[in-house]
Amino acid sequence: MRFVIIGGDAAGMSAASRCKRSNPATEVVVLEKTSDVSYSACGMPYNIADLTRSMDELIVRQAEVFIEKQGIDLRLGHEVTAIRRESKMVAGVTAAQENFELNYDALLIATGARPIILDVPGAELPGVLALKSLADGRKMKSYIADNKVQSALIVGTGYIGLEMAEALHELGIQTEMSELLTRLLTWMPEAMAQVVTEELESKGVRLRLGVDISKIERHGERLRVSFSAGDAAMVDLVIMSVGIKPNSELAEAAGLELGPSKAIAVDRRLRTTDSEIYAAGDCADAFNVVTDERVWVPLALRANRAGWAVADNVTDKTVELPGIVGTGVFKVLDLEVARTGLSMQEATNAGFNAVQSHIQTRSRAHGHPGNQTIYINMICDAKTCRLLGTQMVAREGVAHRINSVAVALHAGMTVAEFIQCDMAYAPPFSPVWDPLLTAATQLLKKIH
Amino acid sequence: MRFVIIGGDAAGMSAASRCKRSNPATEVVVLEKTSDVSYSACGMPYNIADLTRSMDELIVRQAEVFIEKQGIDLRLGHEVTAIRRESKMVAGVTAAQENFELNYDALLIATGARPIILDVPGAELPGVLALKSLADGRKMKSYIADNKVQSALIVGTGYIGLEMAEALHELGIQTEMSELLTRLLTWMPEAMAQVVTEELESKGVRLRLGVDISKIERHGERLRVSFSAGDAAMVDLVIMSVGIKPNSELAEAAGLELGPSKAIAVDRRLRTTDSEIYAAGDCADAFNVVTDERVWVPLALRANRAGWAVADNVTDKTVELPGIVGTGVFKVLDLEVARTGLSMQEATNAGFNAVQSHIQTRSRAHGHPGNQTIYINMICDAKTCRLLGTQMVAREGVAHRINSVAVALHAGMTVAEFIQCDMAYAPPFSPVWDPLLTAATQLLKKIH
Repeated sequence: MRFVIIGGDAAGMSAASRCKRSNPATEVVVLEKTSDVSYSACGMPYNIADLTRSMDELIVRQAEVFIEKQGIDLRLGHEVTAIRRESKMVAGVTAAQENFELNYDALLIATGARPIILDVPGAELPGVLALKSLADGRKMKSYIADNKVQSALIVGTGYIGLEMAEALHELGIQTEMSELLTRLLTWMPEAMAQVVTEELESKGVRLRLGVDISKIERHGERLRVSFSAGDAAMVDLVIMSVGIKPNSELAEAAGLELGPSKAIAVDRRLRTTDSEIYAAGDCADAFNVVTDERVWVPLALRANRAGWAVADNVTDKTVELPGIVGTGVFKVLDLEVARTGLSMQEATNAGFNAVQSHIQTRSRAHGHPGNQTIYINMICDAKTCRLLGTQMVAREGVAHRINSVAVALHAGMTVAEFIQCDMAYAPPFSPVWDPLLTAATQLLKKIH
Repeated sequence: MRFVIIGGDAAGMSAASRCKRSNPATEVVVLEKTSDVSYSACGMPYNIADLTRSMDELIVRQAEVFIEKQGIDLRLGHEVTAIRRESKMVAGVTAAQENFELNYDALLIATGARPIILDVPGAELPGVLALKSLADGRKMKSYIADNKVQSALIVGTGYIGLEMAEALHELGIQTEMSELLTRLLTWMPEAMAQVVTEELESKGVRLRLGVDISKIERHGERLRVSFSAGDAAMVDLVIMSVGIKPNSELAEAAGLELGPSKAIAVDRRLRTTDSEIYAAGDCADAFNVVTDERVWVPLALRANRAGWAVADNVTDKTVELPGIVGTGVFKVLDLEVARTGLSMQEATNAGFNAVQSHIQTRSRAHGHPGNQTIYINMICDAKTCRLLGTQMVAREGVAHRINSVAVALHAGMTVAEFIQCDMAYAPPFSPVWDPLLTAATQLLKKIH
């Protein structure tokens, strides 16, 4: 039995390791087009922020360990260019430009995603960079050091853009961010997003909202970025952070079905429309447990979990993943920002009779030193009282709290049931009523 | 309709306020024997640690607000000494030694709990203090200041004792703790409790384990505490922190049934065995959602929640509280310690086929600065895979994480279901697999 995996990052190497561990007789071949496997892409902004750290610190496990200790046939510099389903074979080309072909019994597509690069003149200039692979990270870090970057424009205000804003701020780089929309974080109420806006501005990050990039030009040592409105920014570095897209072309060319955002459609067993081909990680979709609809939310935990599930499914067990609820968290400067479940817009779009309650409360007990304001928006269905989603922003107490709502979403709890949950209280950590219980109580009042 | 409440702290004042708000026509009379109402008892160790703060900062709402703004007939210095159920009347005595009687239509007993004082010679000496009421807090704080306390012995190693050890350490007081048992925190595995022991000792708190107090004597300005083994400690202050007991004598004398630890037995509507008499707060018991058995876990959130539910039940609605799962958290020096659900011993006693998995993992992503070790013990039933409880210790990331397990316990989740929960990940806050997911994964391996 030969299990071939295309792509050697989170999903691919999780699947490879678990398969070899549970079923050592299986021949596991991983074809990775770059020379990096198994690294923490999410750690790159923090690594870049510290010029004394090597980017290689983000490598979780070296290729040699997979090959020598775990017995995985890991082939670096192997790019797959075609999947021939009828002959159960993949074909490709190596970094040394040699063609290869390989038969599979089971195949996993774990090709990940790549950054979207705006189609504007100058997007290809040196100093216009994006961040997804470890190679991207190395390039950005050395560009910053080699060119003594003093100023930067981040195009886009998603998770990675905001994390990079913090990283550049840490490095003392004068940072601007541009955003096509007129506000940040449209998945949370405007007043909450405003807290993030103010945090950025208070730390000197300039926000250009509602602006589009028309071109980027070299201007001596610097880059001149022109906006549609006619104004321009002059910076040393431009970071393209307008989103990512799934590397699903290989799957599409092989006739496999794609789902939302052109991610590869998979069932709960991670099978594509060809039952011998699996897909996992940033290239594949998932079911949203709240809506029971397909979504594309490319995050690391799902990639690892899906990799494990694929390994089980190609060997002895049958494993079904219920899906995700869309939990995410990021840090931006001194704020923690998190979400789980649906935004108000998503809930309405999904056909729920969605109601939200947006509250401000405190992170610690009345009068306890270090107390911070905590902003919560909680959403439920007015008819069934079912909890649908929550967004949070605060200087503390957000990142782990969001998980209790995530668990409630998986359990399909109503707001009334959630209110009855026995949560932890001690003055340094929470008011007597945890902020989430207060949010739920206020939300319940809106529907009764 | 007259609703009489005995006791004006968390449960009593929550009930009074909610009753008056939802049903202003109801006559609400609160009989409080002291002159303090509605204060944060849990905040006392932190207040004591800061001699510049007044103990009155812990008062959440002043008596006048309840009386003048909310229209509650709050009578301070009114101690109820008897409940005459046949005539639906309470009788008592005021601080001015005047007798009073009062008829009720509905009655709430919210008399709280009091510290257990060891029955040893000298326990009544000045400088031997306990901490439960705000009056206790004021007394302790002024004793420390007036007597320039330099050293103290805390008798007992429960939540309050450990929080007081931190408070005294903050004040620069040389602190010892004595414990009858040979180890701390018997509800968690010994190796985890050892982390707490080491934290105390590393900060200079001396632990005397497996020792019993035989007597306390005045020795000049100081107190000499003798232990059964023959040795003694010479300190300026002794804090009795060996536990609390419910103030249930009034209820017992009225013929109401008591439950575990002699707390007043109540049903899910908070009714005692007399359906016109309710009990709530530290004097009353609750159902444990995991075992469906009565338990006495006197904590603030339950008191508030039960007070609200009583108010609803005596007015227009019928409210049932499902119960508690026993979630608790405390801080001791630089550690966060938390639990929810059952300990291994409790799970076994309750008839479960209990299995535990005790792991050490990291609080943040691989290589992220500030990373700390996080210790988790998770327990499930081997037959049904149902999650039963979790204990955690770490320097960060415990206090809010425990709530996600609490929610899972309320939902009756299995370990396998919990593992599928979509939790938040970003390098500053967690590894890709949240420590709780890692604990659950290891636990599942033990039963499969």
